[in-house]
Amino acid sequence: MDANPILIEQTRGNFVENRHRGAFVLSDAEGNVIAAAGDISRPVFPRSAIKSMQALAMVTSGAINRFGLSDEELALACASHHGEDVHVEGVTHFLGHIGLAAGDLECGAHQPSNGKAREALRAHGLEPSQLHNNCSGKHSGMLSVARALGVDTHDYVTRGHPVQVAVRKAVETVIGEPLSEDRCGTDGCSIPTWAAPLSAFARGFARMATGIGLPEDIGGAASRIFDAATTHPLLVAGSGHLDTLVMEAFGGRVMQKGGAEGVQCGAIRDKGWGYALKIDDGNMLASQTLVANLLLRFADPDAGQRAVLEKFARQLVRNVRGFEVGEMRAA
Amino acid sequence: MDANPILIEQTRGNFVENRHRGAFVLSDAEGNVIAAAGDISRPVFPRSAIKSMQALAMVTSGAINRFGLSDEELALACASHHGEDVHVEGVTHFLGHIGLAAGDLECGAHQPSNGKAREALRAHGLEPSQLHNNCSGKHSGMLSVARALGVDTHDYVTRGHPVQVAVRKAVETVIGEPLSEDRCGTDGCSIPTWAAPLSAFARGFARMATGIGLPEDIGGAASRIFDAATTHPLLVAGSGHLDTLVMEAFGGRVMQKGGAEGVQCGAIRDKGWGYALKIDDGNMLASQTLVANLLLRFADPDAGQRAVLEKFARQLVRNVRGFEVGEMRAA
Repeated sequence: MDANPILIEQTRGNFVENRHRGAFVLSDAEGNVIAAAGDISRPVFPRSAIKSMQALAMVTSGAINRFGLSDEELALACASHHGEDVHVEGVTHFLGHIGLAAGDLECGAHQPSNGKAREALRAHGLEPSQLHNNCSGKHSGMLSVARALGVDTHDYVTRGHPVQVAVRKAVETVIGEPLSEDRCGTDGCSIPTWAAPLSAFARGFARMATGIGLPEDIGGAASRIFDAATTHPLLVAGSGHLDTLVMEAFGGRVMQKGGAEGVQCGAIRDKGWGYALKIDDGNMLASQTLVANLLLRFADPDAGQRAVLEKFARQLVRNVRGFEVGEMRAA
Repeated sequence: MDANPILIEQTRGNFVENRHRGAFVLSDAEGNVIAAAGDISRPVFPRSAIKSMQALAMVTSGAINRFGLSDEELALACASHHGEDVHVEGVTHFLGHIGLAAGDLECGAHQPSNGKAREALRAHGLEPSQLHNNCSGKHSGMLSVARALGVDTHDYVTRGHPVQVAVRKAVETVIGEPLSEDRCGTDGCSIPTWAAPLSAFARGFARMATGIGLPEDIGGAASRIFDAATTHPLLVAGSGHLDTLVMEAFGGRVMQKGGAEGVQCGAIRDKGWGYALKIDDGNMLASQTLVANLLLRFADPDAGQRAVLEKFARQLVRNVRGFEVGEMRAA
């Protein structure tokens, strides 16, 4: 396998300490490549970066119409949220709306990603619940699919359950190619994750942004899901997070979502372009640095948008005493 | 720059998710290479992996003799400790021994690396002090150098201070080549870190293990420092850490020390071999996986030693619910 290029490097003093290789692609809905580096045909696990694609099962199953799901609920279904009050309350409401409760979630519990939320739980002597799991909104969406399909919700996270069959089908429709049992793993929140080429994910996000190449109902739903996410960016991630700040700054023009192990996906909606990237070694900070540089270059940022992106495009490394000792930057 | 080989990979399900490139070298004291991969002439920041080399300034300055430093104090000087009671008490004693106190440390404060130690501080409503900094033992050693040299301890962490000049000289003596201002950065604990080739560090550790190529006083001191570290492995790292467990298991045969951003160095003492490795992307878990595989292959482990190494040579990846979803392993 050819080595992907070094895309991000981290300096210390006057010398490069770490190097991060990877691949990225920006393409239109026909798959025409606007910009790319590295091997974009090599399958990668997209992890949480494609939650908005997975959410399309809420259309194909009829869940969105059946329950009259709100934009806030759709945004939470696309979220890797930080367990702040607004997220926990939103997911609690979502579950109640579909006649279920926290105990029906099969994502497991972990501490909130948000520091203040962690401290608040600790101060009250409380353990985190499934509601605090960053994926609880997506799981609520998947439970709405189960309810719309009229199937038992039990074990809805397993590969063969009708919910995951519907999610897989929705993703295959959007990326335009089959997913394979030969490239499948279990995600952090216990649902399946399927590896596919970066080029397929980028084209899929461009299709979602434009509706091109998609059945009409899916195209329409994709547009609504992107609108919901970009209108409620705080619900999709959390206070201070790149995804939230970028979507706030771009006011609907950019859909942006990170996934574990160095994945970033999204769309520059007004241009009709989708993008996907993966840092080979899984470094998240490097993936954020890379996507910020890509958006600076290709999303025509105004001054305010540029200011947000520049905070992530060159990230200072500080030591224990707070001294600036290096930086992560585009190589 | 040619790409280093993929040495470690992390799977998810039945597919590789992350790839970690890097270089390693195992050599004797003359620099004859026993085994190597990747570019071992490319300078890397050794970070905390060479604390035992830096500790040699305690010989050249006369600090060891002047204060009659104990083996426990020498082990702490080589340590990236976890802020457990034994470490905090040991460093407190060390500082008192040389007529100084916690306020003289210029390493900054951070939470203890050990989870129980963090919880204990929190339960008492206490903030961590400089004593909990993993480098506080090394800094105590550096303060002993300042005292032995009869210089003001203030700003002993800066590049031009007599302490850091002595530390730099000691490292240059052991690795057999000059360090350069062109490849210098500031470490997490605010002292300088100097980049040099992996081959130089590996040969340096072999020299320390054998005394070959070193002035007699430094050779003798190196032997005593390695004895101190391998006799008190808990002081050098912490409960459950690879460095501690490996040195406990090998009973003096192996000196092993990790450094930040994917560095591992050490010596297979009875063979007279030193080793050094760096994961290009700085991933610590990958560096531990790699060093465990190297020691399995080259350190002639018995059954007990093998059992310890195998826990690190193939590390399971678990998700939020504790399911085994992948593994990190040698590529």
